Amino acid sequence: MAQESATHDVIVNAQLHSEIQLFYARQMQLLDAGDFDNWALTFAVDGVFAANAYPTPVAGRDNIAAAAQKATVALAEQGLQRRHWLGMLSVESDGGVVRVTCYALVIETPRAGVPSLRHSTVCTDELHRSGGEWVVRKRYVQRDDLN
Amino acid sequence: MAQESATHDVIVNAQLHSEIQLFYARQMQLLDAGDFDNWALTFAVDGVFAANAYPTPVAGRDNIAAAAQKATVALAEQGLQRRHWLGMLSVESDGGVVRVTCYALVIETPRAGVPSLRHSTVCTDELHRSGGEWVVRKRYVQRDDLN
Amino acid sequence: MAQESATHDVIVNAQLHSEIQLFYARQMQLLDAGDFDNWALTFAVDGVFAANAYPTPVAGRDNIAAAAQKATVALAEQGLQRRHWLGMLSVESDGGVVRVTCYALVIETPRAGVPSLRHSTVCTDELHRSGGEWVVRKRYVQRDDLN
Repeated sequence: MAQESATHDVIVNAQLHSEIQLFYARQMQLLDAGDFDNWALTFAVDGVFAANAYPTPVAGRDNIAAAAQKATVALAEQGLQRRHWLGMLSVESDGGVVRVTCYALVIETPRAGVPSLRHSTVCTDELHRSGGEWVVRKRYVQRDDLN
Repeated sequence: MAQESATHDVIVNAQLHSEIQLFYARQMQLLDAGDFDNWALTFAVDGVFAANAYPTPVAGRDNIAAAAQKATVALAEQGLQRRHWLGMLSVESDGGVVRVTCYALVIETPRAGVPSLRHSTVCTDELHRSGGEWVVRKRYVQRDDLN
Repeated sequence: MAQESATHDVIVNAQLHSEIQLFYARQMQLLDAGDFDNWALTFAVDGVFAANAYPTPVAGRDNIAAAAQKATVALAEQGLQRRHWLGMLSVESDGGVVRVTCYALVIETPRAGVPSLRHSTVCTDELHRSGGEWVVRKRYVQRDDLN
């Protein structure tokens, strides 16, 4: 059924959709657990991370990892655990490049405290395969409060 | 393995499950982006949108779109960006009709402010295919605060 | 493509991934609806439910169901509706055992009130098949506020 007609719903097959979901789960769990070495490997060597909250994009895997580590260490010093939730994934595949538009929530929990929503964002990614793994080539994160 | 026995977990195959997830992502992104013309097309022409927050169901694609547009314009005038998150999808397929019960959160972010949970709901849908696309034939949204 | 190389992203196939997602949706909907008899059947007879919020693990399907029922009845008496959201699933399959690490949110809505985040947690599960159904053999829930 899925293969018979070109529709908005059937832009990707279930296997690719599943892989992208698992990729994001792993990527965000690595970030929130502070495993920056393995998190860095989920970006292309020449990957770019841009956001409407940043003055300029961060370019290159090493710089992306360093920026994330700095931010997470600062949060840990305040006793804050962040969780990055991605959901509502729209996925399009075009040759070797996968484009994803999804929602991303940042949830923050203080030690001995109550969790709260920190950021509501829209995340737009370009992913491709490198060495048998999905990696992010371009990410743009748009915070709703800054629109 | 999945095909061998009728279980609660294997009511639908992965391809259908994937299509429904992608359908919801697209539908909610259209709504939250204010693209009401394309959002309207995700409902059947004679679709019905009911809710425990509404005095009566809204019937017909055009009326559904008009109601959503009115609500979203009012929010935009207050500087509020809503994001509709659907998750925890239970999916059953019966002939041409797909029945989904899922959770739906409405998250609201004021300009220069902090996001908050606006509504926690349970969404029950009947979907079918029309012109090669999934469309909602019946939706019922039950807000937890009104139970 | 997915089958060609062993990568972090392709540890499970889409069908298994889909089944696990549907299992969790059903399991949490049963819990939140107060259907403890059917919820209990989503655990192995000798299942274990541990948490950093519990002094000791709860062992055995009957004890797990009794503990959930007691907690939910207490909430209902206060007019509170909880919704359990699981997301960001990492899934690994090893022989008959599936290991999942995911995020779990508890969202609470008072009657006539506004929903709020109650708990942000990481849930680590071991699942296996029993009688044609997925069941939880071991669950560990780690609340972020108690870390």
